[in-house]
Amino acid sequence: MSYFKHHVFFCCNQRPDGESCCNALGATTAQTYAKDRIGQLGLKGKGKIRINKAGCMDRCDDGPVLVVYPEGVWYQYVDTNDVEEIIQEHLINGRVVERLKLPSA
Amino acid sequence: MSYFKHHVFFCCNQRPDGESCCNALGATTAQTYAKDRIGQLGLKGKGKIRINKAGCMDRCDDGPVLVVYPEGVWYQYVDTNDVEEIIQEHLINGRVVERLKLPSA
Repeated sequence: MSYFKHHVFFCCNQRPDGESCCNALGATTAQTYAKDRIGQLGLKGKGKIRINKAGCMDRCDDGPVLVVYPEGVWYQYVDTNDVEEIIQEHLINGRVVERLKLPSA
Repeated sequence: MSYFKHHVFFCCNQRPDGESCCNALGATTAQTYAKDRIGQLGLKGKGKIRINKAGCMDRCDDGPVLVVYPEGVWYQYVDTNDVEEIIQEHLINGRVVERLKLPSA
């Protein structure tokens, strides 16, 4: 069993002006949204869900990205509506959101 | 198959002065060491290894901590010698370093 049932990492990397990066595409806003929602829903903590910021996860062309471990499912999201769908479908109901899922190989 | 064979996150959280945190215990130095070593060893990239920084992973009492996904193995390290052992044993040879491993539940 994993310490967290779902451990979610948002790439929040900020590159210098003009270079494309997850943070320029709303990553910090999305991560804050997810963290707050998981708290509101009472799903935060050991055995449950953890929402983290991470540095560059090296999938810049697919950004903004997040990854859910231990299952290793990567998503590209556009806005907080997408993040909410990932929370409801994947994190709560255990169903991968196929329309937002990125290739794993 | 996971996008990265091993995706390693170092908690690099910095708390205000006086509060215990992974970064005050050498996390950024350890993460930089691991990232550089994985690069030197030619183990960086898709299908191989990624070394990331993360925000607070909520295991402060066990810090400094890192977690290796998708296997979900958590470690407490003291210095870069421990990090080197995790690289050689776990990331390269696939053997969990029991003496540094943290409980997963």
